[in-house]
Amino acid sequence: MSVTRRAAVILAAGQGTRMKSPLPKVLHKIGGRTMLDRAIDAAYEVGCEKVIVVVGNHSPAVRETATRRVGADNIVTQDPPMGTAHAVNVAREALAGFDGKVIVTYADSPLMAARVLEPVFALEADMAVLGFEAVDPAAYGRLVLDGDKLNAIVEMRECTPEQLKIRACNSGVIACDRELLFSLLAEVKNENSKGEYYLTDIVGLARARGLQPRVTFAEENEVLGANSQAELAVIEKVWQDGVRKAFMDNGVHMPAPETVFFSYDTEIAAGVTIEPNVVFAEGVTVETGAVIRAFSHLEGAKVGEGALIGPYARLRPGADIGRHVHIGNFVEVKNVTIGDGAKANHLSYLGDGSVGAGSNIGAGTIFCNYDGYFKYKTNIGERAFIGSNTSLVAPVTIGDGAMTGSGSVITADVAPGALAFERAQQIEKAGWSTAFRERKAAEKAAKGKK
Amino acid sequence: MSVTRRAAVILAAGQGTRMKSPLPKVLHKIGGRTMLDRAIDAAYEVGCEKVIVVVGNHSPAVRETATRRVGADNIVTQDPPMGTAHAVNVAREALAGFDGKVIVTYADSPLMAARVLEPVFALEADMAVLGFEAVDPAAYGRLVLDGDKLNAIVEMRECTPEQLKIRACNSGVIACDRELLFSLLAEVKNENSKGEYYLTDIVGLARARGLQPRVTFAEENEVLGANSQAELAVIEKVWQDGVRKAFMDNGVHMPAPETVFFSYDTEIAAGVTIEPNVVFAEGVTVETGAVIRAFSHLEGAKVGEGALIGPYARLRPGADIGRHVHIGNFVEVKNVTIGDGAKANHLSYLGDGSVGAGSNIGAGTIFCNYDGYFKYKTNIGERAFIGSNTSLVAPVTIGDGAMTGSGSVITADVAPGALAFERAQQIEKAGWSTAFRERKAAEKAAKGKK
Amino acid sequence: MSVTRRAAVILAAGQGTRMKSPLPKVLHKIGGRTMLDRAIDAAYEVGCEKVIVVVGNHSPAVRETATRRVGADNIVTQDPPMGTAHAVNVAREALAGFDGKVIVTYADSPLMAARVLEPVFALEADMAVLGFEAVDPAAYGRLVLDGDKLNAIVEMRECTPEQLKIRACNSGVIACDRELLFSLLAEVKNENSKGEYYLTDIVGLARARGLQPRVTFAEENEVLGANSQAELAVIEKVWQDGVRKAFMDNGVHMPAPETVFFSYDTEIAAGVTIEPNVVFAEGVTVETGAVIRAFSHLEGAKVGEGALIGPYARLRPGADIGRHVHIGNFVEVKNVTIGDGAKANHLSYLGDGSVGAGSNIGAGTIFCNYDGYFKYKTNIGERAFIGSNTSLVAPVTIGDGAMTGSGSVITADVAPGALAFERAQQIEKAGWSTAFRERKAAEKAAKGKK
Repeated sequence: MSVTRRAAVILAAGQGTRMKSPLPKVLHKIGGRTMLDRAIDAAYEVGCEKVIVVVGNHSPAVRETATRRVGADNIVTQDPPMGTAHAVNVAREALAGFDGKVIVTYADSPLMAARVLEPVFALEADMAVLGFEAVDPAAYGRLVLDGDKLNAIVEMRECTPEQLKIRACNSGVIACDRELLFSLLAEVKNENSKGEYYLTDIVGLARARGLQPRVTFAEENEVLGANSQAELAVIEKVWQDGVRKAFMDNGVHMPAPETVFFSYDTEIAAGVTIEPNVVFAEGVTVETGAVIRAFSHLEGAKVGEGALIGPYARLRPGADIGRHVHIGNFVEVKNVTIGDGAKANHLSYLGDGSVGAGSNIGAGTIFCNYDGYFKYKTNIGERAFIGSNTSLVAPVTIGDGAMTGSGSVITADVAPGALAFERAQQIEKAGWSTAFRERKAAEKAAKGKK
Repeated sequence: MSVTRRAAVILAAGQGTRMKSPLPKVLHKIGGRTMLDRAIDAAYEVGCEKVIVVVGNHSPAVRETATRRVGADNIVTQDPPMGTAHAVNVAREALAGFDGKVIVTYADSPLMAARVLEPVFALEADMAVLGFEAVDPAAYGRLVLDGDKLNAIVEMRECTPEQLKIRACNSGVIACDRELLFSLLAEVKNENSKGEYYLTDIVGLARARGLQPRVTFAEENEVLGANSQAELAVIEKVWQDGVRKAFMDNGVHMPAPETVFFSYDTEIAAGVTIEPNVVFAEGVTVETGAVIRAFSHLEGAKVGEGALIGPYARLRPGADIGRHVHIGNFVEVKNVTIGDGAKANHLSYLGDGSVGAGSNIGAGTIFCNYDGYFKYKTNIGERAFIGSNTSLVAPVTIGDGAMTGSGSVITADVAPGALAFERAQQIEKAGWSTAFRERKAAEKAAKGKK
Repeated sequence: MSVTRRAAVILAAGQGTRMKSPLPKVLHKIGGRTMLDRAIDAAYEVGCEKVIVVVGNHSPAVRETATRRVGADNIVTQDPPMGTAHAVNVAREALAGFDGKVIVTYADSPLMAARVLEPVFALEADMAVLGFEAVDPAAYGRLVLDGDKLNAIVEMRECTPEQLKIRACNSGVIACDRELLFSLLAEVKNENSKGEYYLTDIVGLARARGLQPRVTFAEENEVLGANSQAELAVIEKVWQDGVRKAFMDNGVHMPAPETVFFSYDTEIAAGVTIEPNVVFAEGVTVETGAVIRAFSHLEGAKVGEGALIGPYARLRPGADIGRHVHIGNFVEVKNVTIGDGAKANHLSYLGDGSVGAGSNIGAGTIFCNYDGYFKYKTNIGERAFIGSNTSLVAPVTIGDGAMTGSGSVITADVAPGALAFERAQQIEKAGWSTAFRERKAAEKAAKGKK
């Protein structure tokens, strides 16, 4: 038996006016990844060699995102919108040369991952429909079933009282042979109250030809659609809870998982501890034994084995934190490689450059990396000691084992083993503060009298 | 038909000993506003022209807060407390000249907003009672109803087994014509186990006169009373969830709405994104397109269109943030106007003054605004560039396009287009650090041996 | 009637492979205290004079922790593991001389506190078993009861359909006279599918001798066991919710208790307010009237009456904060005593030393306490004023009422009432910035063209 080839048509033409946002609906993110990207990811991961995205004419940003992923040849435009069957039908030409099964999925159903779509493709049937058991079927179309044989999809408004009790509902996902799909679509009529062409009608049309659609089931959570900000928030929570559970099952220790937020690509090793209130934005990897303390925010960062991050640490893209490094409170690290065992524990900005293994960065250190036009690098050697409140004016290099005096502005390179400082004489004016206070207190009293 | 005039009697005399707090019960806040203020707000918003607050003698702070809102003439004192009917009755004289309907409400029921009270006033009946369907009626008084006709309120202890099953309960809110109210109150007796005068008794007294009280219903959530810190926390959650939902319905994007906290007067435009863990204290307005990143705290601040705030930004009262401004991590802004497109991205304290459009504030910048007696202003022009770790000693003015050198203490004004700096010579002592380390390592080893 | 003596055998030999963590299961913490410590605490608190811990050979860390608590003589080793009866039986010799009741508890059931164990000891019966009503009995052993008489414990697999409906389940905790315990254990057989010796078998053996075991009940939440990270997180939440409720019942005000995290030894007085998102690590005491603002993190710190902490304050061990002190945003305090009414409101690191009453610490102040080898102290007198961005190079003493100039590095002691500063001349180069910008803009444009 030869492997059936697979393609997908992703419906992404909806405007999403219920989101009430200038951002197009399908560009809203779940776990830091746009819903549109998620739908495309799922299609490729489930083995689709051709992925067609149906877009509207209202959003150049959606078209651009989709084009970047699937190529301009695989973008088709539905304008004006005339229903789901119409949307799929505009993909007819783009799929003309394709010989295999086509699945129809939805760019606003971000949890329809490859593992959800796989059983739809795998089902041996003239037509496969993805159903789910709804806790509250509400307005969903009901699946009239005989075992896994699908005899009809009945819209809620047309249900008999008996049919209204059916909890098996239609997710909208459907797959069948390309030729059959477009042959059936050609017969879909828009003789309904909205004057739209409904994709679900192809089930009845297939039945009329003596074909037998079948159903496979997903969890209700997996087929949720996001039509409003509130629905999006619910889906985000479902997704986050799933990822939290998966990390815990894999040995990540989280005393308060409900307060930790992950991104689609976060990688956390077993044996990592994550304290309450931590946010992982895109592109973070954390190795075993590391502890991410409370109130930390990580993005585009790599955290090495046994490192201690936070509380209140902010790691930004390009922060490459070595093993057993300590990054402490109110410290920001961006585009800096930090060698094993180095420490930057307090109130510092490390931007662009490198810190060698075993170095200690004093409280209040600033890498002055920007002149308003360009960014420059600060490179600190191994076992160096940067005194508190040091300003390192990049480009600048601090040698291995060198030290800088507290409060210095370092503008020139420092040789290995040397001490560099920039400091004026400390001057003391005896009694000055006492006199100042008397003067100011009198001034304040005078002001109070006015 | 003439419009009926409206008045309110707000019961605020309870001590709230179950709160176990030095703060009087009704001065505890929900959504950043005291429960007493909320009750008074609701009364005015529902159209009461006269609002009487019944206070006890135990708390000068409650009396002061109420007086500030309704005037001393509308404060009446219940001392000692002898029941709810007694509490309303002490308002008799203060309402003597009032011709219209009086509603009785409760300063410890902070979610009884105007929209909850309106149907009570609007109900055409001799007497209107606000009921609710309790999930668990527990100790609430049961409403014995015939349609919306109220035949009796039965206290839980006196209920028949049949009456105990009633889920329609009494919220305590009641409205009727002033003359009728006080005429009925005069007949209330305290012949019960506690020896108190109960307001609910006027329902039976009205029925005895052949009058017909009627009931209108609120949600149980809307009539919750706060008698303990735990109940207060539940009510806060109900209120926050309602506001979160309202903002989402209006197009505010929040991936984790349950971690975002609002105040009674927060204004967020559609198209704003709020990341997890953000607190809005009193007096914040955010315009469209702004992104409030994780771990930010805003109070008394205005955030302009498209601004990027946080993570870890703290905006304090008087922070007036222009369009497309960036305020980054560990930056505090208080009483500073920041012009369009300006940036202060790292570890800075900007207090009292202004920053012109397009200026860049380097990491570690401090506005030195306080001399222990007075506060002074730092005014920075447009397109200025403040070097990292600059201390700006106010009062001081930095001209348009001026720059300051990293680590400088700027005490004198800087002309437009000029560079100002304060810096000593960088001195390097070759080998000093190496020698220092050897000495210290030996010292440490010696200490270890002791 | 003489008081019966009490002993405990704590089973702590399990490897906890389902935790998938390098950290041994029983060293995972709930509320900041290891589960093993919690089990030992409970045994001592319920009055056990002898506490035996059964450990495996796989984890030196477990053995060390247990030894530190109960002494080497009370550690017994089960290796290899052959069931719970076998585990208790290895304690036979260690308890040989003990005359009284022995309870068997579990180091992975961290909520079995003394108040949960007390009724088991107190029950007058030949043998006492701790049961619980399971919401979902699932795989728990069912208790076949006649009143509180326990006739059998039936493993789920061996249950009749009728027995499967029983919701009374076995917690595993059992107590009886030492002699009886070991006499019964000697009869336990391992003739079951796993070839293990089960402690529950002693119930049947006791019945066979004509003895009558009895049952006392705990809440299901109190007997939860932690076998995975997810179960641990559930137990942590149960524990945190309990502590949150207890603090609220005691008059602590928390608008969002679900976002506040406590440790086992946190002490918060009535009349304290805790805003959302606060973490209390080990060893914190907060006195009445203090306000802990959002995003604060406290560990090993004492906060005095009426102090204002945060938002974004980090108090570390040894922070001893006086009355009405203000510690503001992005301020870290470690091992510093701060006198009444002092203020450190912005972006500072105060490490090792003292601040006198009424002093003001300017924004950006750093105690430079570390030279890479030793730590030194900074002592600031009363009513002193530390200018913004001051670096105080310890050891250093600032006298009462002294002041320091902004941006100074202070390396020598400052006399009371004196002003000390370290500052170079401010130099201004007219037009320099304008020229610089023209040059840089040209450079940037040139780069763009390449």
